[in-house]
Amino acid sequence: MDQSAPPFIEQQQTASFNEPFPLDCGVSLDGITVAYRTYGALNPDGSNAVLVCHALTGDQYAAEPHPTTGKPGWWNQVAGPGRAIDTDRFFVVCANVLGGCMGSTGPRSLRDGSGERWGTDFPAITIRDMVRAQHLLVESLGITRLFAVVGGSMGGMQALEWAATYPDQVFACVPIATASFHSAQNIAFHEVGRQAIFADPDWDGGEYWRAGKVPARGLAVARMAAHITYLSEQALTRKFGRRLQAQDANATLLGEMFEVESYLRHQGSTFVHRFDANSYLTITRAMDYFDLAAEHDGDLAAAFRGTRTRFCVVSFSSDWLFPTPQSRAIARALNRAGANASFVEIASDKGHDAFLLDEPDFHRTLSGFLAGCAEHAGLPFPSGRGLAPSGRGLG
Amino acid sequence: MDQSAPPFIEQQQTASFNEPFPLDCGVSLDGITVAYRTYGALNPDGSNAVLVCHALTGDQYAAEPHPTTGKPGWWNQVAGPGRAIDTDRFFVVCANVLGGCMGSTGPRSLRDGSGERWGTDFPAITIRDMVRAQHLLVESLGITRLFAVVGGSMGGMQALEWAATYPDQVFACVPIATASFHSAQNIAFHEVGRQAIFADPDWDGGEYWRAGKVPARGLAVARMAAHITYLSEQALTRKFGRRLQAQDANATLLGEMFEVESYLRHQGSTFVHRFDANSYLTITRAMDYFDLAAEHDGDLAAAFRGTRTRFCVVSFSSDWLFPTPQSRAIARALNRAGANASFVEIASDKGHDAFLLDEPDFHRTLSGFLAGCAEHAGLPFPSGRGLAPSGRGLG
Repeated sequence: MDQSAPPFIEQQQTASFNEPFPLDCGVSLDGITVAYRTYGALNPDGSNAVLVCHALTGDQYAAEPHPTTGKPGWWNQVAGPGRAIDTDRFFVVCANVLGGCMGSTGPRSLRDGSGERWGTDFPAITIRDMVRAQHLLVESLGITRLFAVVGGSMGGMQALEWAATYPDQVFACVPIATASFHSAQNIAFHEVGRQAIFADPDWDGGEYWRAGKVPARGLAVARMAAHITYLSEQALTRKFGRRLQAQDANATLLGEMFEVESYLRHQGSTFVHRFDANSYLTITRAMDYFDLAAEHDGDLAAAFRGTRTRFCVVSFSSDWLFPTPQSRAIARALNRAGANASFVEIASDKGHDAFLLDEPDFHRTLSGFLAGCAEHAGLPFPSGRGLAPSGRGLG
Repeated sequence: MDQSAPPFIEQQQTASFNEPFPLDCGVSLDGITVAYRTYGALNPDGSNAVLVCHALTGDQYAAEPHPTTGKPGWWNQVAGPGRAIDTDRFFVVCANVLGGCMGSTGPRSLRDGSGERWGTDFPAITIRDMVRAQHLLVESLGITRLFAVVGGSMGGMQALEWAATYPDQVFACVPIATASFHSAQNIAFHEVGRQAIFADPDWDGGEYWRAGKVPARGLAVARMAAHITYLSEQALTRKFGRRLQAQDANATLLGEMFEVESYLRHQGSTFVHRFDANSYLTITRAMDYFDLAAEHDGDLAAAFRGTRTRFCVVSFSSDWLFPTPQSRAIARALNRAGANASFVEIASDKGHDAFLLDEPDFHRTLSGFLAGCAEHAGLPFPSGRGLAPSGRGLG
């Protein structure tokens, strides 16, 4: 690759499916496109595929720089050569979710046969719809069974939904920092974000794209509110405490005062350049709808009865958005279903975002679980590796 | 009182102080007005006054219907005849804070000598400024020593500041669901609310009042975000769970779906009718600035050294906005200072708002503490009462 070429233009991979795609809401899309990225190589027998599912504001660029922001992939510390999800060993697939804004069909897509975008007419999407779209992609790649489905937060919801919907096609499942349903508190935080977007006159009833506008202020406020929920109180205190941004004791009412404020404003203002407001509405809604037990007559165990999938449920001790008891409830349901399941709470003070950060205990847990599953699945070690279940080879 | 008369017009009590009022920020106001309400009767020797301090969005109408909303006083369950703060026994004073919008000097007040309002030119206010204003009021009422200062949340900050600033004028102090400083997480939530207000074009750089406008959407979003932090996850789940507002499975993206959303929207939209946006900015700022230890060279115990005030520090187990460890830190500092202090964590699943709600254990704790202090202070029981420290008499 010519290093001086415009970066990433060629990195957009898409698969289009022109069959009708019926959604849970009752609407059927004429066809869908799924944008995705892959890392590593698929085994000749297609046995080493790991589907990585992204969270609310994530996308398919899990293990490479982001084409818009230039920042490292959101799971660079977890997926890559020698990482817990070792791309020297596994074929990693990561797809932009249905309803997203990085190339998969969503509110920003053109409506069939018209030059118009869907905008707010885009139908309501569920986590199961996202998973069905991924299923089409995975099949089109020649994969009949995923070695593993792994994801955190909304990605964990997808991992659970995969195991429930396609039990024979998922060997191992790792739902991380997630829940089997979205809690009233989490719905409430999402609603604040949506109302902030609706309150922005540039949202223009969802038709902002017609005039080339962006409801930047509303979307930034939504992002700021959400961002607080991704961090623990300890993490915020450690990072910022009560440090002042400027040493001006007479700062006016509107002056920038505390470092934490400046940080949040930055989080909000950078987000609007890479995310579509109608996608934000669509995807937060999909999370709010999520209730896996409700899809199985109120019994979460029924979602997994008879499954042969191996599960590793992971939570983080300081995650107050998807607190440990919600993961424990998943583990209990898996136990009731007779599933092969382990449950690990990682001690961390980084809050919900811990699944994205440098958390060696989490990475060891994930790599150990995948290594054990690979042994059970009879996956060969990549050449040049010893028998150690993880860590880079010497060569 | 004529029941058909316009309600509450005559209930506005104000005290004006025309001396210069220097603020912590360095600005001096030419004079201030403090709007307040009183309940019960002051003893001839002025020994039975209880100052009740209100929280961020509270006001002086603690124990009577609110003149704007008609709703019961915000502390109706705590202050009143026979209540924990027994108005048959105590003379209760509650003042709108400096910077507020219910009659005390604040951003909505007219600037001296002009027909203009302060708006965002209103100087930054601290909790100590609020307390100094209350001190002027209390002195003007002929009270040289308060029997007690009691408040929750920001009211608790004021109670602590009173005890630290006027130690010889506070016999008993009850800081409830509060902290000695505002945490990074709490500053962050406030900042989201402020950004939501700034994002509303009707805020108009703080000059919305010139055109008779209100930044209603921004202020509503601020209120919604804050409201979530006042409740526990358990309380939200118990109240709303995942119940749908309408049984319309095909509801559009923008349709009202979950009951918790409808509740939040209601909270947001009713708030804007009774609260001024610039006051919201001013008062959240005052809370963010609050750091009692910093006022005493970083040593919280130094704020209370040698005090003879009796303290009862109260927290609620499910309060995640002002969690119990923050109250425990106050209690520890009081112990280090050699103060007469007790600390009670009330078991409750109602979150921060528990201090406003029907929490019998809390009310018993408060009434018991005040009764004990009254005995130490030599306060006579009101006529017609037995010796029981609380509870209504038979007559």
